[in-house]
Amino acid sequence: MARAALEEAREQIAFLVGARPRQVVLTSGGTESVNAAVWGTLAGDPGPVALAAVEHSSVRDASSRLGPVVAISVDGTGRIEPAAVDEALTRCRNDHGRLPALVHCQWANHEVGTVQPVVAVVARCRDVGVPVHVDAVAAAGHLPVDLDALGADLVSISAHKLGGPPGIGALVLRRGLRISPLLLGGEQERARRAGLENLTAAIAFGAAAATLAAPGRLEAEAATARRRTERLAEAAMGVDGVVRIGATDDRVGHILCLGVAGVEAEPVLLGLDQAGVAVHSGSSCSSESLEPSPVLEAMGVDGERSLRLSVGWSTTDDDVEAFATTFPGVVGRLRALQG
Amino acid sequence: MARAALEEAREQIAFLVGARPRQVVLTSGGTESVNAAVWGTLAGDPGPVALAAVEHSSVRDASSRLGPVVAISVDGTGRIEPAAVDEALTRCRNDHGRLPALVHCQWANHEVGTVQPVVAVVARCRDVGVPVHVDAVAAAGHLPVDLDALGADLVSISAHKLGGPPGIGALVLRRGLRISPLLLGGEQERARRAGLENLTAAIAFGAAAATLAAPGRLEAEAATARRRTERLAEAAMGVDGVVRIGATDDRVGHILCLGVAGVEAEPVLLGLDQAGVAVHSGSSCSSESLEPSPVLEAMGVDGERSLRLSVGWSTTDDDVEAFATTFPGVVGRLRALQG
Repeated sequence: MARAALEEAREQIAFLVGARPRQVVLTSGGTESVNAAVWGTLAGDPGPVALAAVEHSSVRDASSRLGPVVAISVDGTGRIEPAAVDEALTRCRNDHGRLPALVHCQWANHEVGTVQPVVAVVARCRDVGVPVHVDAVAAAGHLPVDLDALGADLVSISAHKLGGPPGIGALVLRRGLRISPLLLGGEQERARRAGLENLTAAIAFGAAAATLAAPGRLEAEAATARRRTERLAEAAMGVDGVVRIGATDDRVGHILCLGVAGVEAEPVLLGLDQAGVAVHSGSSCSSESLEPSPVLEAMGVDGERSLRLSVGWSTTDDDVEAFATTFPGVVGRLRALQG
Repeated sequence: MARAALEEAREQIAFLVGARPRQVVLTSGGTESVNAAVWGTLAGDPGPVALAAVEHSSVRDASSRLGPVVAISVDGTGRIEPAAVDEALTRCRNDHGRLPALVHCQWANHEVGTVQPVVAVVARCRDVGVPVHVDAVAAAGHLPVDLDALGADLVSISAHKLGGPPGIGALVLRRGLRISPLLLGGEQERARRAGLENLTAAIAFGAAAATLAAPGRLEAEAATARRRTERLAEAAMGVDGVVRIGATDDRVGHILCLGVAGVEAEPVLLGLDQAGVAVHSGSSCSSESLEPSPVLEAMGVDGERSLRLSVGWSTTDDDVEAFATTFPGVVGRLRALQG
């Protein structure tokens, strides 16, 4: 029964992202998937890694541990232009005498929501025979994702980002790709990830994936999310000195990033929190850190004055209106305090 | 609320094993804990690793990936004598010109239940300044465990082995020890393990730990488990050619290993399964593999004819009697078939 339930969950997850079940390696989450992708590739071919500074900290940190990093530049919306990837490949050849051992290209940015030209970037990498990892954690479940059509070597996804539970994610491998496992010590997951399978979380991940894979459901959820973040943006930008950060159209609908002139993010968060509105500054994975966001820095944006707003399956229109009602007063009071 | 619940769970887990909450790094399970212990130690000091072949496959595989292995011998019950550790340290000096970068000593064996002289082994390693990792996955929750008194550098435990859920475990670090994290990309767990915390599983892990930490509860559970496995042993050894494998007294009460002469394990498992009795051959982490158990091989036992029986919080006396009733007939029929 346990085995059948696990494999049914794997089928549901694979179906949502356009892969076959055997390509799906279940992990403990997006961070482990990314670390496993980097380790699995670089263990066999230690070498330089090309990535943009807007990648998630797990991509940046796991890569820089194992090889020199070749930077891919981004524009002011955090977008990775395919020409910037070409430029990085050339620079890697010049600086390191070879092509990168791995290129990263996120599908969508986790802080500002900008969708990357991932199809074009993957195609370029495959043309020159360079393995490519796509961090699809912010995209899967929010955009239609067809991994077999994409052709990336490794793709990371996370359950809790699409309505599933914490503690589970997946690394989806290109058909036939064998990589060196990060976690050793058992033959689980076709000997690609050791450790007792997290069956309860896998079933819940599968259920979330199956819900989103029902015809029209993902598109409907995405449209609702976009409508809500547009309303959040409209309400926020009614306040002087508030701007949107990141792409406005070519973005995932559930993430909105705002810049607020003249006040730091922290007191705004606290003021909103008192009204029952939870927002964030920067990436949630840097919530313990006081460093400014490297994502926003790479885009040339002042990260200390940015707010990240996100909506999900549990968000209501009332939540959105609570922000719209509260935000102008919170910012106004803080600005008044500063004289 | 989430933060408070997570830290309460951490306190409950720490209390069960005699550590302080800040020493507890939550992981996705025993396998990740072991891999993180090995990586964390050897990343800073790549060198030989001393371990016995009776260690769990995660200990063996994670270690042999990163350094040469120096074998610690065991006796016929799978016991690691402190003198064998001394001998391995000397051999390491002779063969590699240095002491090991890491010594492993499991607290209890996962296949045969033998309890190791872990206090003496840890003391010897600390005397000579060698870091020691204790795989306490089969012991924590089944024996009184006082990690601060033990003084090991790194200790791995797993929730599902003590009544908690799958997908969560802990790596307990000696006070003040800093190691290089296996999973990078976030400041969670005091920057010792990146990735969104698995809050739901942590709460359940904490609840299981708190239940076992109630006065007398662990001892009562252990006594019940021992009574049941003794009854299983008695019933099985009523059949000709059935012997116990591993230590009979100095063992964890919930694990029993049997050797069955003249029949292979697989058809016995299937026969018992038809009667609703689930037993195992070898380690559950090798359930996908057809290799004989290296644990039993190290003990000089024929692993192809061994059964591993375990009892847990959900086992009933009726389950035990179902085995006692079924086992003689299953073995008898198989032997008759072989003529």
